[in-house]
Amino acid sequence: MSVNSFGRVMRFSTWGESHGRAIGAVVDGCPPGIELAETDLQPWLDKRRPGTSRFTTQRREPDEVRILSGVFEGRTTGTPISLMIDNVDQRSKDYGDISTAYRPGHADYAYDAKYGFRDWRGGGRSSARETASRVAAGGVARLVIPEVTIRAFVDELGGDPIDRDSFDPAAIDANLFFCPDAAAAVRWETMVDDARKAGSSLGAVIECVASGVPAGWGAPIYAKLDSELAAAMMSINAVKGVEIGDGFAAARLHDWRGSRGHPRQAA
Amino acid sequence: MSVNSFGRVMRFSTWGESHGRAIGAVVDGCPPGIELAETDLQPWLDKRRPGTSRFTTQRREPDEVRILSGVFEGRTTGTPISLMIDNVDQRSKDYGDISTAYRPGHADYAYDAKYGFRDWRGGGRSSARETASRVAAGGVARLVIPEVTIRAFVDELGGDPIDRDSFDPAAIDANLFFCPDAAAAVRWETMVDDARKAGSSLGAVIECVASGVPAGWGAPIYAKLDSELAAAMMSINAVKGVEIGDGFAAARLHDWRGSRGHPRQAA
Amino acid sequence: MSVNSFGRVMRFSTWGESHGRAIGAVVDGCPPGIELAETDLQPWLDKRRPGTSRFTTQRREPDEVRILSGVFEGRTTGTPISLMIDNVDQRSKDYGDISTAYRPGHADYAYDAKYGFRDWRGGGRSSARETASRVAAGGVARLVIPEVTIRAFVDELGGDPIDRDSFDPAAIDANLFFCPDAAAAVRWETMVDDARKAGSSLGAVIECVASGVPAGWGAPIYAKLDSELAAAMMSINAVKGVEIGDGFAAARLHDWRGSRGHPRQAA
Amino acid sequence: MSVNSFGRVMRFSTWGESHGRAIGAVVDGCPPGIELAETDLQPWLDKRRPGTSRFTTQRREPDEVRILSGVFEGRTTGTPISLMIDNVDQRSKDYGDISTAYRPGHADYAYDAKYGFRDWRGGGRSSARETASRVAAGGVARLVIPEVTIRAFVDELGGDPIDRDSFDPAAIDANLFFCPDAAAAVRWETMVDDARKAGSSLGAVIECVASGVPAGWGAPIYAKLDSELAAAMMSINAVKGVEIGDGFAAARLHDWRGSRGHPRQAA
Repeated sequence: MSVNSFGRVMRFSTWGESHGRAIGAVVDGCPPGIELAETDLQPWLDKRRPGTSRFTTQRREPDEVRILSGVFEGRTTGTPISLMIDNVDQRSKDYGDISTAYRPGHADYAYDAKYGFRDWRGGGRSSARETASRVAAGGVARLVIPEVTIRAFVDELGGDPIDRDSFDPAAIDANLFFCPDAAAAVRWETMVDDARKAGSSLGAVIECVASGVPAGWGAPIYAKLDSELAAAMMSINAVKGVEIGDGFAAARLHDWRGSRGHPRQAA
Repeated sequence: MSVNSFGRVMRFSTWGESHGRAIGAVVDGCPPGIELAETDLQPWLDKRRPGTSRFTTQRREPDEVRILSGVFEGRTTGTPISLMIDNVDQRSKDYGDISTAYRPGHADYAYDAKYGFRDWRGGGRSSARETASRVAAGGVARLVIPEVTIRAFVDELGGDPIDRDSFDPAAIDANLFFCPDAAAAVRWETMVDDARKAGSSLGAVIECVASGVPAGWGAPIYAKLDSELAAAMMSINAVKGVEIGDGFAAARLHDWRGSRGHPRQAA
Repeated sequence: MSVNSFGRVMRFSTWGESHGRAIGAVVDGCPPGIELAETDLQPWLDKRRPGTSRFTTQRREPDEVRILSGVFEGRTTGTPISLMIDNVDQRSKDYGDISTAYRPGHADYAYDAKYGFRDWRGGGRSSARETASRVAAGGVARLVIPEVTIRAFVDELGGDPIDRDSFDPAAIDANLFFCPDAAAAVRWETMVDDARKAGSSLGAVIECVASGVPAGWGAPIYAKLDSELAAAMMSINAVKGVEIGDGFAAARLHDWRGSRGHPRQAA
Repeated sequence: MSVNSFGRVMRFSTWGESHGRAIGAVVDGCPPGIELAETDLQPWLDKRRPGTSRFTTQRREPDEVRILSGVFEGRTTGTPISLMIDNVDQRSKDYGDISTAYRPGHADYAYDAKYGFRDWRGGGRSSARETASRVAAGGVARLVIPEVTIRAFVDELGGDPIDRDSFDPAAIDANLFFCPDAAAAVRWETMVDDARKAGSSLGAVIECVASGVPAGWGAPIYAKLDSELAAAMMSINAVKGVEIGDGFAAARLHDWRGSRGHPRQAA
């Protein structure tokens, strides 16, 4: 009963606490013969890296991934691929109060209720730092399905949506919000600064589009892609809703005499 | 790699095609000593049964469940519990066209792409009839966690929401829509009749509330309850979105100076 | 955590107690397009069927298997295949004493220790009757790997081995002991009759040869074929040892100046 | 489908090639609150360490294990425990010929057949070095079941058995063969030296006794302890047979008028 793993044919497990020595992932079931090196994974970790702007956590980590196994002469062997990322800037003192209090909206209380005690430093394994491990594992997975193009962006922040008519793919990597609407990105800077000063934070809606997915992937019912994707997305810290395609809007369609266009979808 | 199963400690598998001899489920990992008989499961199947109103499929099935194993002298033994429901009214002739055409929004094409051919009768395993098996398995699961109260209802149909101020729990089982707002249920009858005459159908938003769930259930990250519940809901035919708690509304909260109340949640 | 299942890519679960209504198996992951009908499975069940000689249990069961799902127009669909065998001759009264006593060498005590109580009728799920379900599932598996020829026989009974120089494959199905040495089969009849009259029983060593297995099947270490086969064999009631190839004899080889021939192997 | 893992409730995965940077294991499902430090695991690795005598491989590795996660303030947190052992003395040049030839009795050919190519250095993942990872994981498992005492020893080498009447537990750790019969250990030194000079090697039979195992552990049939233990033992490099209790000798018992004593058992 692997509760710290995800996947069926290709499966990865993650390990590591926010303030432990390191974090990592072991990827099992990667086909052999695929070219793989740290340089294939590092760019994805760089996109995610903390400490790069005033809009994310102030912790500064190089997040440098190392491949410790499963690769020989530049190609995957089919054996488990162990990935490791050292933790450099733990700042345990910043989190001192958490040892005696439960943060609302975090897993602090749940961990205590389940285990009887917890690694309170930085939230332990409940920290969003765990996502670095899954991003590294995801970097390997991308190489297995080169026929699929995957792109994600933020399409709403704090209740303020992008303007779809101003959608510019090139803008996604040109601002700090992965936002395809340059004007919205400017508004969001102000919104986030204001929230930060008020000691609060904002939510967002993220959209992810995978193109080129062949018909028939997944398996009926309990392993259908919709279900697997939803499970994956909901396992990310702080995610509270998932939609596929038109999602909730599809539930609201009632003009059967013609389609109204495509409502916004979100993953 | 059990793709036709769901669950970790307690796990069930379903089998059966819409027009095969029978459908069923095998429940594995049910604790021993729990009182279980067909009468514990039949009420849930009766709620779901097709052919009970003009608003659902016209197929007429008694959906009588039988327990074939895992129970001795009225209590579960801890060994696998096999549940079976005979298919009585297959009406294969009603579905004759499907053998040569793919229905939009159904899995017909996906099955052909994946397997090379498919059991087209009534959609085979892709038919929503499969949910009878999972409802039977769910009936067993409820007995394992008596401390949890589970209630579900429809809170929106075809874009028309219930009035929360008129919420009456007793109304849920008093109309054909499991709707807690009697006035909405009346409007919905007209809406569905109109849709049916136009040869179309409507979507809905269903809400499910589980009360009494102890803190600590689930496991961190890949087995957190949010993720497992999302996977379960999304595996149901035609479900396209899942929210936990305030869901997408939580992503839109931006007035941090005070909570605006509780936006509608949906599972 | 499916404890009542076996297999990885193709996986089956069994259910049913010796004296329950029926026993069965659900086969998951069978590739689509394989021709399958009850007539493919029945011969294997007939070989195993109780009540066919005075040398096995006196219970008389037709052991007629039915395929309830996963087949359409004579071929597997890729969806779960549910197999069921009705229990006809339960003879619960023959087993009346077991309800108040633990049989040595059986799982009676272990079940009580684990579950707190047990279905004592005929040993419940611990009965060797469960093997009928696995034989049915195995019948499906054979069709998936037609390139492999599988043959098994008894090569020793009660300490009396066959004479390898008298090995005759045709004899295997010509006597009640699946013995390839006709003379040994005759001796064994006497031995078993004597043991039966003394109120005792005898053990045996069974050999199984699979020919045509391609190199590379299985996966390194924890899923190597040796390990999977050993697990499968040891899960059969009363099996207490497994060898692959030369087995224990290989551990005893000490004449490295030349091979002495092939010591007897046993599965 | 985790093929590089073992276990159900508590489960571990291993990774690493013989000549890669490191090898390791991730232990999932360890209960929280158990005192764990490197000093609990190192003694087991020291017993196994290569290069300690002329009777094992000449590679010299410190095999120092580090715990990278899953422990806080000296106790397990219930989250995954990552264990790592650096490879120091790879000696890739010693293995140069293997890159162009298949060693008989090794997995070289099987890996090529399965994957299309292999990490030939030291056998890659097929090397017995992998057992260091499983020994480390086993060290954690021992702490979870302190009520069970586990002891193993070699009871036969190259066909030469120990004398049970001279069984001395203290001798097990007093010679290089883990042999409880001091006289046999002396004979074995000569046998192994002779085999080594002849360019050959010898096999052995190892016995493992676990005392204090409560009745009811394991689960019926496919997860019975016999089956799980057999799978675990057979997954170790070069193991070709497993017996539980009297094993094959039990199959040969034929004097039902009284037991002859206890034949030698082997795991």
